[in-house]
Amino acid sequence: MSAPIVAVVGGGQLARMMQESANALGIHLRVLVESKEAATAQVTPDSPVGQASDTQAIAEISQGAQVLTFEHEHVPNEFLETLSIPVRPAPKALLYAQNKLKMRQVMDALGAPNPRWAEVSTKGELADFAQKVGLPLILKTPTGGYDGKGVLKINSLGEAEEWLSALGEGESLLAEEAVKFNKELAVLLARRPSGQVRCWPVAETIQQDGVCSVVLAPAPNLSDKVADRACELGKKIASKLNVTGVLAVEMFLVGQADEAKLYVNELAMRPHNSGHWTIEGAVTSQFEQHLRAVLDLPLGDTSPVNGAAAMVNLLGSDFSEPREAYPQALAADPAAKVHYYGKGVRPGRKLGHVTVVGPDSSECARRARKVVNILQGKEAE
Amino acid sequence: MSAPIVAVVGGGQLARMMQESANALGIHLRVLVESKEAATAQVTPDSPVGQASDTQAIAEISQGAQVLTFEHEHVPNEFLETLSIPVRPAPKALLYAQNKLKMRQVMDALGAPNPRWAEVSTKGELADFAQKVGLPLILKTPTGGYDGKGVLKINSLGEAEEWLSALGEGESLLAEEAVKFNKELAVLLARRPSGQVRCWPVAETIQQDGVCSVVLAPAPNLSDKVADRACELGKKIASKLNVTGVLAVEMFLVGQADEAKLYVNELAMRPHNSGHWTIEGAVTSQFEQHLRAVLDLPLGDTSPVNGAAAMVNLLGSDFSEPREAYPQALAADPAAKVHYYGKGVRPGRKLGHVTVVGPDSSECARRARKVVNILQGKEAE
Repeated sequence: MSAPIVAVVGGGQLARMMQESANALGIHLRVLVESKEAATAQVTPDSPVGQASDTQAIAEISQGAQVLTFEHEHVPNEFLETLSIPVRPAPKALLYAQNKLKMRQVMDALGAPNPRWAEVSTKGELADFAQKVGLPLILKTPTGGYDGKGVLKINSLGEAEEWLSALGEGESLLAEEAVKFNKELAVLLARRPSGQVRCWPVAETIQQDGVCSVVLAPAPNLSDKVADRACELGKKIASKLNVTGVLAVEMFLVGQADEAKLYVNELAMRPHNSGHWTIEGAVTSQFEQHLRAVLDLPLGDTSPVNGAAAMVNLLGSDFSEPREAYPQALAADPAAKVHYYGKGVRPGRKLGHVTVVGPDSSECARRARKVVNILQGKEAE
Repeated sequence: MSAPIVAVVGGGQLARMMQESANALGIHLRVLVESKEAATAQVTPDSPVGQASDTQAIAEISQGAQVLTFEHEHVPNEFLETLSIPVRPAPKALLYAQNKLKMRQVMDALGAPNPRWAEVSTKGELADFAQKVGLPLILKTPTGGYDGKGVLKINSLGEAEEWLSALGEGESLLAEEAVKFNKELAVLLARRPSGQVRCWPVAETIQQDGVCSVVLAPAPNLSDKVADRACELGKKIASKLNVTGVLAVEMFLVGQADEAKLYVNELAMRPHNSGHWTIEGAVTSQFEQHLRAVLDLPLGDTSPVNGAAAMVNLLGSDFSEPREAYPQALAADPAAKVHYYGKGVRPGRKLGHVTVVGPDSSECARRARKVVNILQGKEAE
């Protein structure tokens, strides 16, 4: 009875869904959770409470574990370097998912396609950059952002004033051109320390107010050549940065058909919202694959199980308890798969998601949306 | 944050797999486990220790729960009748999964097809029955059996002597003709208190030494008419006995094609080994469906996701730690789904299972068997 122990920093929905795969594979998950009410704490017996910045707590969950991994990037890299067990992804790789300026620099170094960008800390620098790429443009805080937080689209230089004046000594912002994309894509893959890599089919992500709203997989109307290029780009980034575990590379698609261009938008080194569809839609889910990858076990098949799938996020609304709508929601579509993370309801918060698997991802999305609407207390169509 | 609470008696692999579905749906599982090392205790934060016969412990897990259910039948019915929360399946139905004599009686009363059977407590009664149906025949203890335990195939009356002489005052055995079947089938369905019923495709089960070894779903070479009859028979039993939750009806198939006859073998009122393939192989797994059914929520789609599937049980061998063979096993078939229950290894014990989904169930079974062999420390082909 010697289950391998995987220590995880962060107790949100990603670690919670990882627990389901750990359960199936007989892997012991030990999760550092933010509070006893955290999504993962509800379903993981071994879930000590502590903050991700708490080095003592991280040292403790690492005791006797085979590997330490994460469900978010907000972790103390320098301390992680001192741990005696493998940390996957390694801090040297994770850095590029933590710091968007460093990510842009390393993408340039790799020859990966960046949108035009600049590091700015003064109004003058921003004005120079705006001169080059035009307005609107995008400002990002290099670290700490998520789900649209830490991102500001500005239509005039004046709109940047508050952010610029809040910068401390030595701090700067990332300025990026506002890419006029046709679609946003997400390349999801997993990589083992031994180098084995597997990509899932490239997905299309549709954002609303900076938050992922819908994922269609495989991305509809994407040429095979472009999908292959996207996957190869993801693999190159994974291997050059020596990423282990799941890597999501969010990309912009500009132009049409085989001639379309790809630009790297963001990186995440962990299971990612764009991959929730893989739980039912692919032979191997991103959560199972992440565990296999960080334990350096052979990776699973990433084929879709039934052609395509769509996932729609359930965001918090004024409706206080989505589970009260289960009778209506589950009756509305017997094939819809409802995931609920057990988190306190707040407007806009990611509370769960609904996946529908089937040959036509647009039809799947329509059906998943209908169920989400019911769970949000909105009238069904 | 008011998760519905489902209380479960029994902490083996069935409750453990139920936890994965509870996790996804945001349902709080509270499981009465046999020990802190039980399969379910490892993955369920709310898992008090107590025996299934401990009425006080059952009363305690029922506090604040929406419903009480089971992962095995060895529970104290009279006490369950006194609980104030719903018990699903209800003791009045569960009785027929607990007592094989009462099951035979009620099948006769329903007009469901029984093999010839008799209640015997003396050698004379057994000799009379053997006169009628011939030898070999099957003896069963009415209660307490599982996985081939409590079942004895006798080739002569003398072989029954030990069992007959061990009978206490008022006790008896169930004697059944040894049906010469072509196949064993399992009809799996779920039923809600409100009456909604959904069948999965009828599966073929292959037993070895009285233990389920392989499940093929849908059952190959089964005529649609016979599959429909099997499913209708299952539904009739469920509705007449007022079963709620998952019901498995194991059947013998005798004869060929549309003319084949069906006989009821055994009933189980809970998720069942014959339904493990549904985790990956069907749109809705038996574990999710059981939770939906006992909470009286609308049932999910039971269609296969990719035509067919096969499941092979991983039984304990001399190999002490199947997880040590993960590198070989997972490499051997990237699409095989390995489930490991975290139980102590003993020869013959159900330690896990492997499912492969694909259009041809025989090919799936061959592939799953190969992975199981590796996990048992046997040479791969």
